[in-house]
Amino acid sequence: MTSAKDATPTKRRGRRPAGEDTRAALLEAARAVFAEGGYDGATVRAIAARAGVDAAMVNHWFGGKEGLFAQAVLQVPFDFRDVLDEVTADGPQHLGRNIVRAFVTRWDGAGGEVFTALVRSVTAREEALHLLKETLVSRIFAGITSAAGSDQAELRAGLCASQVIGLGMARYVARMEPLASADIDTLVETIAPTLQRYLTGDIGFPG
Amino acid sequence: MTSAKDATPTKRRGRRPAGEDTRAALLEAARAVFAEGGYDGATVRAIAARAGVDAAMVNHWFGGKEGLFAQAVLQVPFDFRDVLDEVTADGPQHLGRNIVRAFVTRWDGAGGEVFTALVRSVTAREEALHLLKETLVSRIFAGITSAAGSDQAELRAGLCASQVIGLGMARYVARMEPLASADIDTLVETIAPTLQRYLTGDIGFPG
Repeated sequence: MTSAKDATPTKRRGRRPAGEDTRAALLEAARAVFAEGGYDGATVRAIAARAGVDAAMVNHWFGGKEGLFAQAVLQVPFDFRDVLDEVTADGPQHLGRNIVRAFVTRWDGAGGEVFTALVRSVTAREEALHLLKETLVSRIFAGITSAAGSDQAELRAGLCASQVIGLGMARYVARMEPLASADIDTLVETIAPTLQRYLTGDIGFPG
Repeated sequence: MTSAKDATPTKRRGRRPAGEDTRAALLEAARAVFAEGGYDGATVRAIAARAGVDAAMVNHWFGGKEGLFAQAVLQVPFDFRDVLDEVTADGPQHLGRNIVRAFVTRWDGAGGEVFTALVRSVTAREEALHLLKETLVSRIFAGITSAAGSDQAELRAGLCASQVIGLGMARYVARMEPLASADIDTLVETIAPTLQRYLTGDIGFPG
């Protein structure tokens, strides 16, 4: 803020303890801009402007748009080890319940913006698609099936991903009622048994 | 075809019995163009050019881009009454199995193009989102829950939609293996029990 007339909060760069504050502002701005237009529709310039910082800060903190996308859209809601620890903490019979809680809590916390940004980018860019597959399926669900010692681990992981992605599509992207407004307990009660069966139940074919 | 040099098959309009042939060519071209760029990225001109017909034919046969989208992307794979009849033909205990077969057969038949076109358009346009919600949820799944006489019909319909949409995302848009290459029997065996429970099983809360 350089004058009393200029009261836009996002321009109060002088008040920030620099570093982390700039980084946090960029992450928040990035989620909003990626959710609006997807990866292709977002520009480093637009994100920096929304955060009220210089565009060079994007390169400084994230190495560019791709790194910012990874941090803002993929990594913030899915700190893989945290999710894995949280989901597996109560043993194999509570995986389904814990998965629904872990995902919905994180997605609701980001207001659905992160998931929407992800989907809009997935449909626009092969790269976002790759990131989704790598992170959501390979890291999280494969980590879970591995922790559970499941047979047919890849099929089970894929089935879980399909239900979780579908929940995200219905709740955040399409905002279908009553799923969009359902409380977390309803989602756990209704969807956890699906994931539990996919992970540890009888899914038919032996391989 | 007006000269021997002009051998492009799509220009052989003279050989067509006019009408229905033009219409079919436009539908096929529209699916490809909508799958590539989504609703916003597609133009009537590009679709007509791909079909080898005059752009005015789009208005003549479909009343414009929206009508063409509805016919090419929404209505061809989902003739609501057909799907409903097929799914409900074997009684309430086979709904899950029949839903998986009905959707996957139609989506595989259109090569995943239709579903991909739908998702890319959903993320770009509120209108496509509305169409998806109206058709997939309201008409198909609400029709099924209504036919099954289910309690909590809207919640059950939404849960089914979430799993079916998630399957489409995994199999056609993200092409996650092994779901992308799985045969239909594997998909029925693994996913039908989920839909069956959502429709006729215990989903916890009584309302």
